[in-house]
Amino acid sequence: MLKRLLITGAGGGLGRMARQRLAHLAETLRVSDIADLGPAGAGEEVVQCDLGDKRAVESLVEGCDGIVHLGGQSVEDRFSVIANANIHGVFHVYEAARRHGCNRIFLASSNHVVGLYRQDQYLDHTAVPMPDTLYGLSKHFAEGLARMYHHRFGIETAIVRIGSCFPRPVDRRMLATWLSPDDFVSLVERVFAVPRLGCPVIYGISDNDDRWWDNSHVGYLGWRPKDNSAVYREEVCAKAPPPAKDSVEALYQGGLFVAEPIREE
Amino acid sequence: MLKRLLITGAGGGLGRMARQRLAHLAETLRVSDIADLGPAGAGEEVVQCDLGDKRAVESLVEGCDGIVHLGGQSVEDRFSVIANANIHGVFHVYEAARRHGCNRIFLASSNHVVGLYRQDQYLDHTAVPMPDTLYGLSKHFAEGLARMYHHRFGIETAIVRIGSCFPRPVDRRMLATWLSPDDFVSLVERVFAVPRLGCPVIYGISDNDDRWWDNSHVGYLGWRPKDNSAVYREEVCAKAPPPAKDSVEALYQGGLFVAEPIREE
Amino acid sequence: MLKRLLITGAGGGLGRMARQRLAHLAETLRVSDIADLGPAGAGEEVVQCDLGDKRAVESLVEGCDGIVHLGGQSVEDRFSVIANANIHGVFHVYEAARRHGCNRIFLASSNHVVGLYRQDQYLDHTAVPMPDTLYGLSKHFAEGLARMYHHRFGIETAIVRIGSCFPRPVDRRMLATWLSPDDFVSLVERVFAVPRLGCPVIYGISDNDDRWWDNSHVGYLGWRPKDNSAVYREEVCAKAPPPAKDSVEALYQGGLFVAEPIREE
Amino acid sequence: MLKRLLITGAGGGLGRMARQRLAHLAETLRVSDIADLGPAGAGEEVVQCDLGDKRAVESLVEGCDGIVHLGGQSVEDRFSVIANANIHGVFHVYEAARRHGCNRIFLASSNHVVGLYRQDQYLDHTAVPMPDTLYGLSKHFAEGLARMYHHRFGIETAIVRIGSCFPRPVDRRMLATWLSPDDFVSLVERVFAVPRLGCPVIYGISDNDDRWWDNSHVGYLGWRPKDNSAVYREEVCAKAPPPAKDSVEALYQGGLFVAEPIREE
Amino acid sequence: MLKRLLITGAGGGLGRMARQRLAHLAETLRVSDIADLGPAGAGEEVVQCDLGDKRAVESLVEGCDGIVHLGGQSVEDRFSVIANANIHGVFHVYEAARRHGCNRIFLASSNHVVGLYRQDQYLDHTAVPMPDTLYGLSKHFAEGLARMYHHRFGIETAIVRIGSCFPRPVDRRMLATWLSPDDFVSLVERVFAVPRLGCPVIYGISDNDDRWWDNSHVGYLGWRPKDNSAVYREEVCAKAPPPAKDSVEALYQGGLFVAEPIREE
Amino acid sequence: MLKRLLITGAGGGLGRMARQRLAHLAETLRVSDIADLGPAGAGEEVVQCDLGDKRAVESLVEGCDGIVHLGGQSVEDRFSVIANANIHGVFHVYEAARRHGCNRIFLASSNHVVGLYRQDQYLDHTAVPMPDTLYGLSKHFAEGLARMYHHRFGIETAIVRIGSCFPRPVDRRMLATWLSPDDFVSLVERVFAVPRLGCPVIYGISDNDDRWWDNSHVGYLGWRPKDNSAVYREEVCAKAPPPAKDSVEALYQGGLFVAEPIREE
Repeated sequence: MLKRLLITGAGGGLGRMARQRLAHLAETLRVSDIADLGPAGAGEEVVQCDLGDKRAVESLVEGCDGIVHLGGQSVEDRFSVIANANIHGVFHVYEAARRHGCNRIFLASSNHVVGLYRQDQYLDHTAVPMPDTLYGLSKHFAEGLARMYHHRFGIETAIVRIGSCFPRPVDRRMLATWLSPDDFVSLVERVFAVPRLGCPVIYGISDNDDRWWDNSHVGYLGWRPKDNSAVYREEVCAKAPPPAKDSVEALYQGGLFVAEPIREE
Repeated sequence: MLKRLLITGAGGGLGRMARQRLAHLAETLRVSDIADLGPAGAGEEVVQCDLGDKRAVESLVEGCDGIVHLGGQSVEDRFSVIANANIHGVFHVYEAARRHGCNRIFLASSNHVVGLYRQDQYLDHTAVPMPDTLYGLSKHFAEGLARMYHHRFGIETAIVRIGSCFPRPVDRRMLATWLSPDDFVSLVERVFAVPRLGCPVIYGISDNDDRWWDNSHVGYLGWRPKDNSAVYREEVCAKAPPPAKDSVEALYQGGLFVAEPIREE
Repeated sequence: MLKRLLITGAGGGLGRMARQRLAHLAETLRVSDIADLGPAGAGEEVVQCDLGDKRAVESLVEGCDGIVHLGGQSVEDRFSVIANANIHGVFHVYEAARRHGCNRIFLASSNHVVGLYRQDQYLDHTAVPMPDTLYGLSKHFAEGLARMYHHRFGIETAIVRIGSCFPRPVDRRMLATWLSPDDFVSLVERVFAVPRLGCPVIYGISDNDDRWWDNSHVGYLGWRPKDNSAVYREEVCAKAPPPAKDSVEALYQGGLFVAEPIREE
Repeated sequence: MLKRLLITGAGGGLGRMARQRLAHLAETLRVSDIADLGPAGAGEEVVQCDLGDKRAVESLVEGCDGIVHLGGQSVEDRFSVIANANIHGVFHVYEAARRHGCNRIFLASSNHVVGLYRQDQYLDHTAVPMPDTLYGLSKHFAEGLARMYHHRFGIETAIVRIGSCFPRPVDRRMLATWLSPDDFVSLVERVFAVPRLGCPVIYGISDNDDRWWDNSHVGYLGWRPKDNSAVYREEVCAKAPPPAKDSVEALYQGGLFVAEPIREE
Repeated sequence: MLKRLLITGAGGGLGRMARQRLAHLAETLRVSDIADLGPAGAGEEVVQCDLGDKRAVESLVEGCDGIVHLGGQSVEDRFSVIANANIHGVFHVYEAARRHGCNRIFLASSNHVVGLYRQDQYLDHTAVPMPDTLYGLSKHFAEGLARMYHHRFGIETAIVRIGSCFPRPVDRRMLATWLSPDDFVSLVERVFAVPRLGCPVIYGISDNDDRWWDNSHVGYLGWRPKDNSAVYREEVCAKAPPPAKDSVEALYQGGLFVAEPIREE
Repeated sequence: MLKRLLITGAGGGLGRMARQRLAHLAETLRVSDIADLGPAGAGEEVVQCDLGDKRAVESLVEGCDGIVHLGGQSVEDRFSVIANANIHGVFHVYEAARRHGCNRIFLASSNHVVGLYRQDQYLDHTAVPMPDTLYGLSKHFAEGLARMYHHRFGIETAIVRIGSCFPRPVDRRMLATWLSPDDFVSLVERVFAVPRLGCPVIYGISDNDDRWWDNSHVGYLGWRPKDNSAVYREEVCAKAPPPAKDSVEALYQGGLFVAEPIREE
């Protein structure tokens, strides 16, 4: 059991769920966001913090022996926004972790690191990165950073290319990308339970019938997701007709992100 | 839902089953065979047609927006027979599809395209073709044809290397090659349901304990077969003693086909 | 069904279990060990034998049409002990098999043939051998021997890199390496049931959530293990705190074997 | 040295060169074409023959212990023409070889078997076939046929995916695909000199600076091409401006063939 | 021939050499640096520019149809310096290229993108990135950026992981990493000469006897380096004794960079 | 430069050549054999030693900082002979090296470790071992041993699968397997010159046109062999007709070794 687990980005959709369901992993849960998180619950510490602020992040990480790093920008935006939160921000988190001896991190990377692969391609963890957006590119940066801190400084990171973590899949693409909340929780549990984590790339998806990604290589985590998006297939397909076969929705793993405009400022 | 689905070879064993069980995929089912198919049922059109007859195939395909191509010769025969039905015939089908804008095809290829691999080899979709018969060779031809029509003309094909589609496995080899009717049906459903099919090679087998072939790469279809030949193992093994370890039955994936004589005319 | 199945090492833990549960595979079970095995049961022959004794092994094997070779040294020891039992001994077994026409062998190899791989590496049967001990090295020798006898003399061997075959997993490493007795038995059954075995490397593990090894390539055996160490995870983890992440227990697939001293004599 | 070497297609560009330069490989050279080849030279036999004529091919092959099969259609044409010469024709050649015990064949296959790969892809002999034309498709058929006759009947074939065999490269694409006449000759020599040929795919190209294809796997032939198209680069590039980057000339390995229309009859 | 080729970083060591030797590639050479470059020569335009200044870069790129991007920080430094020049800077360059229709870029990436691999590992272009420094990480970012701009906007980039481009190798590591000036020049020439470039990773090294990296996959560029560091081996080895086998110099491809401290500001 | 280099097996063909040509690598050359080596030359120490004698080997290795281990049995023999020299013997050498801190070894392994591969297969260092004889099996043992001593004790070994090291190739098989004396010498030089060796498998062959084996992965050694068996091809082929295509000579990489009988004692 951890002494103090930091959850960054605890104000976002995934973050709120993490806050509710990961308390058992640590004596104290420190939750943080750039937005107001409301009052601390029992066993909680609440810290408001902009990840772009090096000093603030330094304090935020101090005293923690584990981090679930969900913070930063989680959709496409202007480069200045992405760079502040996801490039400078993630660097601050790792530097703080290094200085304070925090040696295990769950890093929310994204499927958008490989978003420009086609949906009929099957990828494993060695796929050459093909980011689809500035957002995806910032996660690509974070993955390289995590790998450097692992090999040079011994900080272990689970680089989790999260698909779509929602209560249920809500569109066709999510039939392949869905990560159920339960499977998310069990993955975090395994990441902090195994004696040795290393620095693996893990595709964050449930045991969906629809599959683009292979996780065989992380069998050593003992994580076996239980949910399957196929249960919702009929419901999802009833909502809307299928996209045209050459639309970005049908063509790319990154889906509609691939059509996002580049915004400089 | 398709407007009109053509099933060729509807008079064969697999074809009859397809005719019975695929009606829900289209408003109209057009069934065809070289043999008499009896009267049309509700929502059916019946067309008698020799695939070697270019003009007849042209008419056959017109008006269809999907094809389940089971037609042609399905066992070894004289080269003239194989060539007429499976080489000239399949070319006629694809040319007709191209001219009439029919863009999605379920192509019954065969495990005999790789029939000369040994049974202790595990293949994926990239295995270099090793046809075991003139029949297997004609399917090898069809696979190349489908790939050309996909990359040049956008026609999508599921190249399905069918194992053995029967109500139940009836010999030892089928413990590995069995495709249950239910799993066949669910595969066809997925092939016509996905927004983008591409031109994948799919091994047409159920979730058998005995496995020679890997389908991981087509996870994007969301097809997960449910049946398992192991249920019938005892029954099958009780029928006959195991073949000698160096017999073609025990040695090659293509089984007894490997011993078929070549017949020129 | 075999005429006479020889089980070597029938006095060890695995051997006793094999003796109890494999009788149905043969008309006669011949069990052997260097130690006293007690009286023969019904359908049994008991032979006391030092595998290092060529003549004794010659007689032991005569008349058998199958061997489950569990005999020899099964943990690290002085080189002279290992060499006598596991190098000279296994050579005697194969030479006797060749002379007497015994053509199918279940060879208890060991995960210690690849024990120096890290636990975060995922291996298949082609992994370059990395033995962790003199014991592992002797099994590495046996694997090469089996392969030579297969390709030159047609003797088929299942090279089974047994993980940890115990009634239940008793430490964290066994969550990945556990082979349940039931799954061991079903594997032996398949090895002697398939018409053609070849000479595959098989990782002897149950269907554990924790996985380091891939067995896809032996799908042709139709062996699908049913047990899963995850059932015992809580029990196992309650026993002891996790090892340090850089301890040999957490780092290497071979676990504590990696720290065994080399003992020459 | 061979007794009698048959060269089919001896009237074509490559065939005329072969006729002139391969006489030293056999006591007798039998040259054949559908067109008139003029009178036989010393040590030559001349046979006019349509490969689509089974009986004629039967006679043509009788008495030969080696074949350099260059015959058939070598550019795109109507399917009926391609099928007659390159599908039925090549089948006749192999059947005749099987009946008459001719066990070694140099098969002129073509880069158009993989013509739909992009020019920035690097292929080896295991690339999944992607024919670009009916012509390429017929060679794809021939490759499967050769492989079947090898594994079932022991006929050895060098499947040579010839690039562009001309005195010198004459366009930019040929900088990559050029096979010099000298390198062609030395390849044929090696194919008939090695004790064991097997049935390899060989890319027929010189030692060009521009390379799309890897031949490492056929190192056992001891063939090391000596010429390099780079000598002609300046000359070639001076002739014409580079093609647009998205033209078929710049995009596909098959070059302009990819734009050939399909012609049924 | 290009209309106007931009060389960024023209004041650095590599940049000065590029300025001297690449003039023949374009009608006009536009050279730029953050430092003073002295007066423009014939056919030159000189622009002083900080790559971190978006507007300045916008003007810099306007009117150019090719870029040799050598600019930015080329050794380890504080993150703020690296980020400004190599992250924000390279983004500005690509955005400007996109806006102004400049479609071909030679991007000076670095071997430090894979600097944490060991020297006894042999890498090809698909190696999972393992940056060794903030500098290497910034190049890792640039590679992802280039790939995104290629697949989404059609800008072609040669991602050149330059080893060590100096007149001659000056230490042992450079025996493997050396890129001679002549080979650098011929590489740039090929990058701007081929009709279709795509977005390949190219290891920028000469034909050295010492090799860590494979370039087979870019054979389509027709680039064959001519120089070999082995000519200088004796000279280099005479200078200093070999490093200890476990020193970073002997262990990692990135050499001494691996020991650079992380500097935040 | 080494203090004292031990050459074992200095009385054999390869050993005599090594003794003559490797003196420059060390201040003192210690040469050993089971046979009489004659008087010591200048800078030489001569030690007669049976590798099966643990104590003798202990003394032999003491004081050496490098070993070229050519000793032991180099052709097929009775198992007792092979085991004594090549299994017990090599273990004694490594144990002595470990005790006395000798950390770099050139191990003469053999192509017979992979002798059961066919000659039309192209292997790299990861090929699954397929020993063809007891001799090949003993080298397979030695390779595993070297790998264990490297990973556990830091002893670096060049595992050199020597082809055929003779002044010139004398039969057809040697056209592929020949290692010229000059190339042998330059390989040993590189093995003792590189700062870090690791524990690579190296195929010991010259730059022959005929190639079965790939050495790309050891580019970091900077070893580029200069000789080519092709120079002797005509001479070799004139000696004898080619072997039948299905003879062991033509079929297997191990050549005639594959037909050696197994001799127990």
